[in-house]
Amino acid sequence: MVLQAIKYKRGSLQILDQLKLPHAEVYDEIRSSKDAWHAIKEMRTRGAPAIAIVAALSLAVELQENATKGELSTTAEEVVAFIVEKLDYLVTSRPTAVNLADAARKLRVIVEDFANSNSAVGKAVKDVYVEAAEQMLVDDVLDNEAIGKHGAEWIKENTEEGKGGSMSILTHCNTGSLATAGYGTALGVIRTVHGNGWLKNAFCTETRPYNQGSRLTAFELVHDRIPATLVTDSMAAALLKLKRSSDRIAAIITGADRVAANGDTANKIGTYSLAILARYHGVKFLVAAPRTTIDLETKSGEDIIIEERPGKEVTMVKGPRFDGVSLDLQSVEMVSIAADGIGVWNPAFDVTPAELIDGIVTEVGVAEKDGDGKFDLARLFAANRSGIKPSTIGGM
Amino acid sequence: MVLQAIKYKRGSLQILDQLKLPHAEVYDEIRSSKDAWHAIKEMRTRGAPAIAIVAALSLAVELQENATKGELSTTAEEVVAFIVEKLDYLVTSRPTAVNLADAARKLRVIVEDFANSNSAVGKAVKDVYVEAAEQMLVDDVLDNEAIGKHGAEWIKENTEEGKGGSMSILTHCNTGSLATAGYGTALGVIRTVHGNGWLKNAFCTETRPYNQGSRLTAFELVHDRIPATLVTDSMAAALLKLKRSSDRIAAIITGADRVAANGDTANKIGTYSLAILARYHGVKFLVAAPRTTIDLETKSGEDIIIEERPGKEVTMVKGPRFDGVSLDLQSVEMVSIAADGIGVWNPAFDVTPAELIDGIVTEVGVAEKDGDGKFDLARLFAANRSGIKPSTIGGM
Repeated sequence: MVLQAIKYKRGSLQILDQLKLPHAEVYDEIRSSKDAWHAIKEMRTRGAPAIAIVAALSLAVELQENATKGELSTTAEEVVAFIVEKLDYLVTSRPTAVNLADAARKLRVIVEDFANSNSAVGKAVKDVYVEAAEQMLVDDVLDNEAIGKHGAEWIKENTEEGKGGSMSILTHCNTGSLATAGYGTALGVIRTVHGNGWLKNAFCTETRPYNQGSRLTAFELVHDRIPATLVTDSMAAALLKLKRSSDRIAAIITGADRVAANGDTANKIGTYSLAILARYHGVKFLVAAPRTTIDLETKSGEDIIIEERPGKEVTMVKGPRFDGVSLDLQSVEMVSIAADGIGVWNPAFDVTPAELIDGIVTEVGVAEKDGDGKFDLARLFAANRSGIKPSTIGGM
Repeated sequence: MVLQAIKYKRGSLQILDQLKLPHAEVYDEIRSSKDAWHAIKEMRTRGAPAIAIVAALSLAVELQENATKGELSTTAEEVVAFIVEKLDYLVTSRPTAVNLADAARKLRVIVEDFANSNSAVGKAVKDVYVEAAEQMLVDDVLDNEAIGKHGAEWIKENTEEGKGGSMSILTHCNTGSLATAGYGTALGVIRTVHGNGWLKNAFCTETRPYNQGSRLTAFELVHDRIPATLVTDSMAAALLKLKRSSDRIAAIITGADRVAANGDTANKIGTYSLAILARYHGVKFLVAAPRTTIDLETKSGEDIIIEERPGKEVTMVKGPRFDGVSLDLQSVEMVSIAADGIGVWNPAFDVTPAELIDGIVTEVGVAEKDGDGKFDLARLFAANRSGIKPSTIGGM
């Protein structure tokens, strides 16, 4: 029932082509690292965790296929060299994706360590690689499910609406199956709230300028039959004022591109606005992210540089043509929605100060502020589970 | 230099076709009440004051033409009957526009009173009508210029940025020449600030879902060579945080669809959000509107019913096709920007509580709150200037 953007079983990998969403649901077969390289390059797959995991699994599929065909080298050394070459190649599909390089590095260390410490044969190296890549997928989904559980329970216990019965939750951008290895972070919390029978309604913002909310989150909510309503970013304040009571709106929850050591959170543009509106209306504001998104090296939001993107992303919009009756999915057009010559400021994300955040939901629990109003995020890393996981910084 | 949406001199009326904006600037000749009826019906002209004034002036042009051709009736009675018939007809172009009916009623009273109290001939009745219709245009533009002056001076005197030198101002939706008889209200304030040499930069929000900001306000700002930057609604908070100091952002100013007796203000969806963000960042928030927008019969915002509009306005967007190089103005397409089947909440406007409003800028001065934090708007009506003006309630 939960939308799967990555379908994997040993020897077979399929990805949902995100360029065709939300109007068509098409899975592409990924048979090799080359297929994955193109899928990542062309943005058919997106989201920091998803990119790293698709890359890792594509090579697992390729190795498996080579083994089946009897084309796998017999020596450990040659298989390690093959893996390293392909990992280096995969990283070039998106050189700026820190977490892709990070995942490749972790996988390389695993196979090299294994080969060095064992009188291994080629097939054993392949097996170690395949298991490590599969573990990335499994761990990421497990982590998201744990985020879902912790977040859902926190909202249930810490809001009047949650305690009293069914509740509604507002989210921003896309943090679901389409942005992660599966299930999702903030949207995963909404999934769990729904799965527990506690959800009245999910509200998603359009998330201008790239419309991840109206295109992707709305798609996931419709797909999973979660009761949901789309609003423009500009409607969130009116929603909290007019619908909080009737719709029992308990919380706003978003993902994160990067959480600084003090809890300041960089995320999709518009997040900071929502946090202010939540505070003004006395609604809880939560950030949901795996611990790999927490960057203890970044002391606070002031150390985060805001990327400014081309104005065209604001002034142009793309979608299938509507002829007055139905959508023509074969005819995807880009249209202008702004006056020619106007200057545009287009920051990709903003930073929400820790002061406005009530909790940071991770796979090991929800971090809250202490009596001094400060998050102690380093403590989260003392918790036990770690596993092999790519970093998620910079990426929904 | 100031964009004119209505070009009038006695015997001649032209309107800027707003359906072709912002990509083409085409004026349509309006020679008769029939031409105006179609222009209003087809939305080639829009904005509450503009509609009423175009209707009034179209009949003035028609009467003038009839007189020139010698087709005007000689008796006062027949000219009055002709005017009343045409006014009734004009009102049917947009039966829901309260202010159009209101303007027609005022004009009818003027010509009937004149005909009743004088042994007038047809030509004299025509002259009275033409002068009254022309006065509507003149008064509305004069009022807007007065709003501009009062607003500009208030911001100059009441903000650190204004006192210190050049300043930037953020506005929402379209309240300029394209929404009024000319010059504009909130955008008129920005025009005056610019004209006085005090403006560093104007920021305009996109104003989802109908994009009046990116299409119309951006067009006016580019047209009048006012330095300006477009942002999405979701960027306003980040703008205030990151650019307030460098861009010297002094205030947010918006128009109003209706101001209640206590100062609560109904305006385009997103206004309430901006008012909260202004308060959080300590930036002044102003509403600019002629006194005809103040409805003393409406006690507070709680008495205002919010109109909910079709979801399609959020999920579909229209504009000229971009072929990758240039815009094809002959090919205006509607495209879908949301997942099929998603529910939508689309309130047309929201209500900003008086508590969040620092001043209400009218043509007779800026209303501020008294020591108890309450606006005394009734007092504005004790001021002297009144003239003949259509109501503007419900309409930018």
